Amino acid sequence: MPKTAGIILIGNEILSGKIADVNAAYLCRELRGLGVEVRRISVIPDEVEVIAHEVADASRDYDLVFTSGGVGPTHDDVTIEGVARALAVKVVRHERLVAILEGYYGDRLNDAHLKMAETPDGAELVGGAPLRFPTVVMKNVYILPGVPEIFRQKFDAIRERFRDAPIHLRNVFVRIGEGTLADYLNGLLADFPTLLLGSYPEFSNPEYKVKVTLESRDQGYLEQALAELLSRLPAGALVKVA
Amino acid sequence: MPKTAGIILIGNEILSGKIADVNAAYLCRELRGLGVEVRRISVIPDEVEVIAHEVADASRDYDLVFTSGGVGPTHDDVTIEGVARALAVKVVRHERLVAILEGYYGDRLNDAHLKMAETPDGAELVGGAPLRFPTVVMKNVYILPGVPEIFRQKFDAIRERFRDAPIHLRNVFVRIGEGTLADYLNGLLADFPTLLLGSYPEFSNPEYKVKVTLESRDQGYLEQALAELLSRLPAGALVKVA
Repeated sequence: MPKTAGIILIGNEILSGKIADVNAAYLCRELRGLGVEVRRISVIPDEVEVIAHEVADASRDYDLVFTSGGVGPTHDDVTIEGVARALAVKVVRHERLVAILEGYYGDRLNDAHLKMAETPDGAELVGGAPLRFPTVVMKNVYILPGVPEIFRQKFDAIRERFRDAPIHLRNVFVRIGEGTLADYLNGLLADFPTLLLGSYPEFSNPEYKVKVTLESRDQGYLEQALAELLSRLPAGALVKVA
Repeated sequence: MPKTAGIILIGNEILSGKIADVNAAYLCRELRGLGVEVRRISVIPDEVEVIAHEVADASRDYDLVFTSGGVGPTHDDVTIEGVARALAVKVVRHERLVAILEGYYGDRLNDAHLKMAETPDGAELVGGAPLRFPTVVMKNVYILPGVPEIFRQKFDAIRERFRDAPIHLRNVFVRIGEGTLADYLNGLLADFPTLLLGSYPEFSNPEYKVKVTLESRDQGYLEQALAELLSRLPAGALVKVA
């Protein structure tokens, strides 16, 4: 059974338009490449109750959940508490994380730093070496930081554990509009009901009017659907297949 | 009472990593500038039931809801149906939209095009002129297209109806880390409990280590909090205020 995923971005700075997220776009691409189907992205504020509610739903609905943001030492870093509340456990200090922080901060270590050693009770640590800091996983929830460089480093260190059967993709570019194309796509779906079929109009591209995407985990089924679509399209409609 | 908003992006192409959204980031910035507080962004697939569920929740929880995507003539354009189901009404053909489509397509008008004249029963049309196509509003749900240029044009035509009391912002840049800063921020929040206070570390900027954001709808309160923070920060910690 192929895996599904939910992505939860935690951060007032995104909702208030101060920064544009890049982590979800990155993670969607990476997970798709690994064969994981992302079913939802949520962007929510730095509020414990909202986080708890969102994580509880996602942890129940999807195989994998990834959170981004809210894991530093300040007052607005409440992701750990939110995840703990979602899964009905306490927040505890993790010995191994305390040791890492002691090694890094030495004499300067204070309570604020030690907040970064907190995890939901029962959490695992994964993907530590060669990174300084491992990733905290609670049940099926992977807790990642909001800073994009670190987000990517940490995901890279654990990515292979998510690999699934690949989702194959073919793109068909046509010079007819969606209004004309619609019937052809409906006809194709009637014969290939499990095909993932997307239709994306392009209004400012002189080369083509619509990009049609065909996807399936079954490569034979995909190639059959593609051949069928190409044979049905009106003469001259096709620009290219890629 | 200041307005809250939810943004719902409808599109498999975002979840599968084929395109990175720009509409939510744009809308967050614009709404913030208008004084509207965005409380959630959701990205969900082109599926009627999922859309209906999400829109029903958002329409109940927020003053304003904006959807993006899923409004063309093809099989994967199911936003209208989802919104109608969320608000327990039928989908109908809107006379005024039919007339606009007739004017545009003339003899070439077909059933697929006419799908774009469908609205939830009871919907209003707003912001038509000078645009060809007005925006469909059902209750508090504004239905916008996914194509970024058109999304912006349509939002621009209706933006002034959302204007609210402004949210004032001040940025404080410091050269101390979050671990040291945390206590100062906690102290400030104890004295200014309704202040919106954000802390954003910067790991690759030689100028400063953390950007602190202070926000309030009350400018006097904001300036008082800012003065208090500046007076409390350790000597040499401040880089600049902006």
